[in-house]
Amino acid sequence: MTQQESTHEAQEFSVERAGSVTTPRGFRAAGLACGIKDSGKHDLAVVVNDGPLQDASAVFTSNRFVAAPVQWSREAVADGTLRAVVLNSGGANACTGKGGLADSLQTATRAAQALDCTVMDVAVCSTGLIGVRLPMDELLAGVDDAVASASVQGGADAAAAIMTTDTVRKMASHTSPGGWSIGGIAKGAGMLAPALATMLVVITTDADIRPLALDRALREACSQTFDRVDSDGCQSTNDTVVIMSSGASGVAPRGDEFTQALTAVCQDLAMQLLADAEGSSHDVTITVRNAASETDALEVGRSIARNNLFKCAIFGKDPNWGRVLSAVGTTGAAFGPDQVDVWFNGVCVFRQGGIGEDRALVDLSGRQVDVVVDLNHGPSQASVWTNDLTYGYVQENAEYSS
Amino acid sequence: MTQQESTHEAQEFSVERAGSVTTPRGFRAAGLACGIKDSGKHDLAVVVNDGPLQDASAVFTSNRFVAAPVQWSREAVADGTLRAVVLNSGGANACTGKGGLADSLQTATRAAQALDCTVMDVAVCSTGLIGVRLPMDELLAGVDDAVASASVQGGADAAAAIMTTDTVRKMASHTSPGGWSIGGIAKGAGMLAPALATMLVVITTDADIRPLALDRALREACSQTFDRVDSDGCQSTNDTVVIMSSGASGVAPRGDEFTQALTAVCQDLAMQLLADAEGSSHDVTITVRNAASETDALEVGRSIARNNLFKCAIFGKDPNWGRVLSAVGTTGAAFGPDQVDVWFNGVCVFRQGGIGEDRALVDLSGRQVDVVVDLNHGPSQASVWTNDLTYGYVQENAEYSS
Repeated sequence: MTQQESTHEAQEFSVERAGSVTTPRGFRAAGLACGIKDSGKHDLAVVVNDGPLQDASAVFTSNRFVAAPVQWSREAVADGTLRAVVLNSGGANACTGKGGLADSLQTATRAAQALDCTVMDVAVCSTGLIGVRLPMDELLAGVDDAVASASVQGGADAAAAIMTTDTVRKMASHTSPGGWSIGGIAKGAGMLAPALATMLVVITTDADIRPLALDRALREACSQTFDRVDSDGCQSTNDTVVIMSSGASGVAPRGDEFTQALTAVCQDLAMQLLADAEGSSHDVTITVRNAASETDALEVGRSIARNNLFKCAIFGKDPNWGRVLSAVGTTGAAFGPDQVDVWFNGVCVFRQGGIGEDRALVDLSGRQVDVVVDLNHGPSQASVWTNDLTYGYVQENAEYSS
Repeated sequence: MTQQESTHEAQEFSVERAGSVTTPRGFRAAGLACGIKDSGKHDLAVVVNDGPLQDASAVFTSNRFVAAPVQWSREAVADGTLRAVVLNSGGANACTGKGGLADSLQTATRAAQALDCTVMDVAVCSTGLIGVRLPMDELLAGVDDAVASASVQGGADAAAAIMTTDTVRKMASHTSPGGWSIGGIAKGAGMLAPALATMLVVITTDADIRPLALDRALREACSQTFDRVDSDGCQSTNDTVVIMSSGASGVAPRGDEFTQALTAVCQDLAMQLLADAEGSSHDVTITVRNAASETDALEVGRSIARNNLFKCAIFGKDPNWGRVLSAVGTTGAAFGPDQVDVWFNGVCVFRQGGIGEDRALVDLSGRQVDVVVDLNHGPSQASVWTNDLTYGYVQENAEYSS
């Protein structure tokens, strides 16, 4: 298996970045400016499922400090159905106590009134500064406007309305030759459990798929994609990925086809998050191969992805295999120090415990960097994605409160 | 207990920064330029124990990739005796294979010849770039010169010769009213197990202390000091702390007095490392109190200390308690999210799960920042020390290979 093949396991399912949550039939969306952001930029979005099915599932941050909208949405999605998701940027509504929870509930209630459904079928997502209450008058009026204006053309506006430090909106879709599709929007510059600078993702599908299969597919897709993006090792209080199924295509996908297609869409969105990560100048794919287990491979990959010295070296275009080994050496993974190989962009700079090819042969001038660590100790493999650590990252996070 | 008291438990033992490894009787040291560094700066040091005792102990990195000098020194100190330590900067001799191990052995052998002792009584420490062999002709000639010129005035030169990215040399000593003393030199800008950008420390004492007590005191002192400095969460292949006892004072300290004094010296050296950490603009003391256990307190403290968003906020002089809570929430420590308080420099900005005093009251203009997290969940407490994440850190680690 070559390095490129190993990093994109779901590549056989084509993904379009023009499509979004309104690509699948049965969905409407809107995005607008309701006045939460002082800048006047778009700050409120809604995604509505008009059915006939209203199946849904979601995964949330594993942070133990969970924002009010996450507390609410966990309850709303618990029965496996959702009519709509309301999302706002400009404020995370996290660590805001009982008042904040009441705000999320009020938001859901207003959308439910506008949609003539139960409040238990409306999820809420928020992103922005922690510890600040939302301007509810503006937000509630915005909910009315958003529901009223939601349309099958509204996916791109919804994607724009959830941006915070994002510089571009993130959308993706897959259309199956079988007649069903999956679409998604995302915001953020980090990762879901175990980490993220608030990632919000809404995914829709018109496939006719049973609730349990939908839930299983979402968890599998997230574990292979968003869970392996580790931009800065920091985990948000608000991270949420919601999927809703309308069944409007009337087509039931075969076998694992839906899971694979969903993984492809999530993978594409994850790569869009990475490419737009705060201040980054490189996207780094770390592939650990021939590990004793997938768990070992992931532990080694994450350890490298979180090593600030390694991340600075990548920014400096330095194929610093010593910092890679230092990170590998802090793990509990099974390996022999004399049997490890390290590759940077195809050049084996460290081989079997000793100095390998000339590091000057490594070209790190492009945005994409592929680091391969071969533990030579088993059959398993995994990839983790991260960014470099740059002046821009420090600037954004020293000057922007979030 | 006030916040200030909690951060300096060993403050009753006075520490002088003018003293060093040659403050205790029975020790000689030297530092000189032998030609390892292209810059012509000092790069070789030796610390010699002339006895009458030659007891010694050491702790080393827990990184599984250990540098050649660590491999060698582990063997040398295993019997609890050392005559001398040879230290070089300008090259870490890590990941250099069997040839590198032979270089460390040859270095020890040359010092042993010059000192007329067994090679098994000479430890070796190296710091600098990983993966490059040392210039042995220059180094071995330097060992001869260093042993020949070692004197009771040489401690400061030795401290200078082990510097890499350090901007100042680090020395400390404690002189007991009882007639014995402890002295130390250090280099580095990070932490020992679990992390460090190569920290080397040599400590000497003329106390008459038995080998087992010496070893126990060193491990206890390191666990309370160097182990809790987490500048950047990165762990080196070369980290070493060596202690040698000459017994030349003829005085045996009482009870735990030696351990406490040693802890005070190590604490002072640790704070010097922190204050000189690469590119840092703030020293941050994170104290976690009322935890269910010391383990919980340490887990929470380390999680905050390694959170890049928090570290950037400190650089930006932003008392961002949301990022503190995000880090706390990723741990497995026992706490109730509604019972946690967070203090920045004495201002309780988050209290009992809700917004506390006005964050504008917090002054982060000085170098020292005290963050207190009160879990309100038990009797235990621990402090962890870290730095902020700055442009300077990124610059040094993007442009300087280490």
